[in-house]
Amino acid sequence: MNLDDLPVRDELRGKSPYGAPQLDVPVLLNTNENPYPLPEPLVRRIAERVAEAARHLNRYPDRDAVELREALAGYLTSSTGHAVGREQVWAANGSNEILQQLLQTFGGPGRTALGFAPTYQMHDLIARGTGTHWTQGPRGDDFTVDLDVALAAIAVQRPDVLFVCSPNNPTGTAVPRETVLALYEAAQAVKPTIVIVDEAYTEFSHQPSLLPLLEGRPLLVVTRTMSKAFGAAGLRLGYLAADPAVVDAVQLVRLPYHLSAVTQATALAALEFTDTLLGYVERLKAERDRIVTELRALGLEVTDSDANFVQFGVFPNSHAMWQAILDKGVLVRDNGVPGRLRVTAGTPAENDAFLDAVRTSLKELPTS
Amino acid sequence: MNLDDLPVRDELRGKSPYGAPQLDVPVLLNTNENPYPLPEPLVRRIAERVAEAARHLNRYPDRDAVELREALAGYLTSSTGHAVGREQVWAANGSNEILQQLLQTFGGPGRTALGFAPTYQMHDLIARGTGTHWTQGPRGDDFTVDLDVALAAIAVQRPDVLFVCSPNNPTGTAVPRETVLALYEAAQAVKPTIVIVDEAYTEFSHQPSLLPLLEGRPLLVVTRTMSKAFGAAGLRLGYLAADPAVVDAVQLVRLPYHLSAVTQATALAALEFTDTLLGYVERLKAERDRIVTELRALGLEVTDSDANFVQFGVFPNSHAMWQAILDKGVLVRDNGVPGRLRVTAGTPAENDAFLDAVRTSLKELPTS
Repeated sequence: MNLDDLPVRDELRGKSPYGAPQLDVPVLLNTNENPYPLPEPLVRRIAERVAEAARHLNRYPDRDAVELREALAGYLTSSTGHAVGREQVWAANGSNEILQQLLQTFGGPGRTALGFAPTYQMHDLIARGTGTHWTQGPRGDDFTVDLDVALAAIAVQRPDVLFVCSPNNPTGTAVPRETVLALYEAAQAVKPTIVIVDEAYTEFSHQPSLLPLLEGRPLLVVTRTMSKAFGAAGLRLGYLAADPAVVDAVQLVRLPYHLSAVTQATALAALEFTDTLLGYVERLKAERDRIVTELRALGLEVTDSDANFVQFGVFPNSHAMWQAILDKGVLVRDNGVPGRLRVTAGTPAENDAFLDAVRTSLKELPTS
Repeated sequence: MNLDDLPVRDELRGKSPYGAPQLDVPVLLNTNENPYPLPEPLVRRIAERVAEAARHLNRYPDRDAVELREALAGYLTSSTGHAVGREQVWAANGSNEILQQLLQTFGGPGRTALGFAPTYQMHDLIARGTGTHWTQGPRGDDFTVDLDVALAAIAVQRPDVLFVCSPNNPTGTAVPRETVLALYEAAQAVKPTIVIVDEAYTEFSHQPSLLPLLEGRPLLVVTRTMSKAFGAAGLRLGYLAADPAVVDAVQLVRLPYHLSAVTQATALAALEFTDTLLGYVERLKAERDRIVTELRALGLEVTDSDANFVQFGVFPNSHAMWQAILDKGVLVRDNGVPGRLRVTAGTPAENDAFLDAVRTSLKELPTS
């Protein structure tokens, strides 16, 4: 039997699974992973907490993940200065599952989601996967959200769910607080709209988190992940902060016991090491800034970045440049943004290797 | 803000989250958990394998869970005698997520799913959650699938997805091989239909697994879980076996990196201890049979069981009987099947406590 012969839904016909190519290359700077392995004391603490959880693994996990949500709320409170309670926090298997639950609750057939492209492709894919009509407005030439254009898109598309990705993937662009406020107000003026501020990369930003905007805005949702700042992409732990009513609402669609006891135990261990892990974030921010500076010194056009990655170009043939860099043992990402590529900030040595690869590749493939 | 004031989808209004009441009671026999904790050598092995995985937790997990699917295929092959390759196996966070992925791929808006009630309530809920139209045909008075009635339901409902739960939850009823074959043929005669055989409890059955039916039936899918036989409800590891094209198809809707590295590591450790864990299954089968015999000796009507639980009745007021048993420190489940309750097979001591509670309660609340 071939895939094409199966009775899959029409809209899935001819599609491919989402995901970056996984290649065996010395320097992997393509999926915005944190290059620093967890410190050994944390590895030991994970083993301890997981062993403890495994002794009760015959029982279902805490369906409401109360201890974990309490710890996540504590982290949000201490890192932003904005008090968040555990009743405002919900957790799932990666922020993708968080977004899926939000769209199952507030999107779905007959409803519309709006984002500003280029942006995180999973917003589009998860919208479609939940039957939500996906629409997108353009960004400005510098990849910022142009408020007039965005307000026009809201007026035309009348979204039920509005995505604001800040810092934005794959461009690295932060959205100013005032812009988010204006978008929230404009959307509510049309109809009650869930505004999802995707802050997967916020710990790397030059600007503070948008979390305090939750105050007095019951339809605002901030989504987060432990994949990046906590160096735990393998853990698949995403979470949201919002009005407690939003947390109640997503529980109507979450699969019961969706979050395993080992995931909860591992996340709790990592949260005990918050200070150590945020120390790595500081190093990565410095490296990110260095990459921006050095790429600009090479004469490249580099998008301002508030994330742990950098978008650079402009290349007449970005795929040829991607391949040229890969040929030197460094894997970066071609996200389909015309003329641009994206590189994740790695360790200083990895970044040096990347910069050397770009220098050499530029001699082979001039930008103009 | 109240939940009712949020712009949730209309079909979610007034609903409550799915899940058994969680009460603090000495004897918990309400959610079909395995009463035997994992053996200590397995706990140590989990800690070892998770520590190993945690050293690379900054990286995304194996998106395709190749090693785990290979191990699951090995288990299916050795336990059923039917050769299954890893390209026929897919894994997710609990069999609920497996079912959700199948319905996102083969169900959804404009499509219909059919099951035979009373059956596992999540079939209905996941169908609705994915926008699939849910329909159900009745079972016979003894809770078996009446083939004539079932064939009529297929002809009328023309399902795109057909659920056959064997052994069935909450009744414990196995579906004979010949019945499944007839249902598969009848469904295909109407239109290409994905037939999902939910075998969550098959390791406890008196009859062999229906897995060998996969041969030559590319639209048949067998779903499984490690929650019950492997004593790992806290792990949330469900899987399916089917034609490799079905495995390709669900990858069009799965969230990328849906299965964490710690989940994969823990499941792999548990699979190393298959023989030990299946030893507990033998004990539970004997206890399940004892519960059936002893409840019948009390004059109760007990449904034949091929699972790790037993449905019993008939009570004029099943909620009063549920409460009477609870008052004696034993929590069983009221699944809404009129006049019936369901009890999970626990340890011998737990089952004794349950049987004593029933004896006493019957004196307080006669059945007729």
